[in-house]
Amino acid sequence: MMSKAEKTRAFIIERTASIFNAKGYAGTSINDLMNVTGLTKGSIYGNFENKDEVALAAFDYNFALVIAYIKKEMSKQENTINRLLVYPKIYRNFFKLSFLSAGCPIANTSTEADDTHPLLKEKAASALDYWRLSLERQLKDGIKNGDIKANININEVVGVTTALIQGAILHAKVSGKINYLNASMNYLEAMIKQLER
Amino acid sequence: MMSKAEKTRAFIIERTASIFNAKGYAGTSINDLMNVTGLTKGSIYGNFENKDEVALAAFDYNFALVIAYIKKEMSKQENTINRLLVYPKIYRNFFKLSFLSAGCPIANTSTEADDTHPLLKEKAASALDYWRLSLERQLKDGIKNGDIKANININEVVGVTTALIQGAILHAKVSGKINYLNASMNYLEAMIKQLER
Repeated sequence: MMSKAEKTRAFIIERTASIFNAKGYAGTSINDLMNVTGLTKGSIYGNFENKDEVALAAFDYNFALVIAYIKKEMSKQENTINRLLVYPKIYRNFFKLSFLSAGCPIANTSTEADDTHPLLKEKAASALDYWRLSLERQLKDGIKNGDIKANININEVVGVTTALIQGAILHAKVSGKINYLNASMNYLEAMIKQLER
Repeated sequence: MMSKAEKTRAFIIERTASIFNAKGYAGTSINDLMNVTGLTKGSIYGNFENKDEVALAAFDYNFALVIAYIKKEMSKQENTINRLLVYPKIYRNFFKLSFLSAGCPIANTSTEADDTHPLLKEKAASALDYWRLSLERQLKDGIKNGDIKANININEVVGVTTALIQGAILHAKVSGKINYLNASMNYLEAMIKQLER
């Protein structure tokens, strides 16, 4: 069972995660944290060293939500190609999913953190590595079990898939238009289908 | 000739542009602006209404540098395909170009501004529109003058090219690795070459 302190920490993380993702680390103030939690400054800083520590925990929380959703959707699919097609299917509709509506936590954290917050940058970099490695593993498994052609360029598929998704979401968010997002996700779908053996 | 006030404004914009691009709007403080300009707070705010106004002018400055460089490189090329190949060539080496080393101004501004600063978001959205329209115009001209196949999906090429570049740069910056950036730019090069009639 969680202690009272653990429960309070979990509550603070859960409540502040989406505001960190939406407003960014520097754009989120202690007042924002107080507003969304209904707690006093003393109570928040009684549970966390500083804003940094809340932000790092919030990043983990946001990223875990995305991973859990993708895993759940993939587990419903029978073969590697259909599992990979979950990516364009999810990201085409990211604005309808509450935990993605403020954008991808990796993208949001990356641009802000890269030049200013080394610990957040490290989190975003690890999350990106995790994504790349999962995709690489899926492609290798797909080759092994005969779902995917043996002669594909794994680095290229991993690089293009992750970069295309990230860029397309970023552009859809800033422009408020989804036609290019849809065009990019159609393209990604076709690219994935061409991997089939 | 520029008046003294215009010169001071231009000086402030020139000096602060790269720090806004690197640290973001919220992450850049008035102290940062004072440090890089060597001016007092009073002198900066004697020339700009507030930090917002400096940030907006800095965005325009950063974006104009990128545009000017790309135009110069493209003007050296003879046909549409070679002009389009300037994109992967430039972005593959973005970290070596001082005005791009902190990342793309559109990407940096987009993720930060979308949920918090409507005027900056508008700037980033207009810059993105400008990029998409230039690319669309180049593709249409290329079709008209016979450089490019007539049956390409223009929206898809525009969406994929811009999103792939943006995502690949973002990932290279946060991970500090360029192997996936190179793989993505190789892919983009091959995609552009396939447009040739």
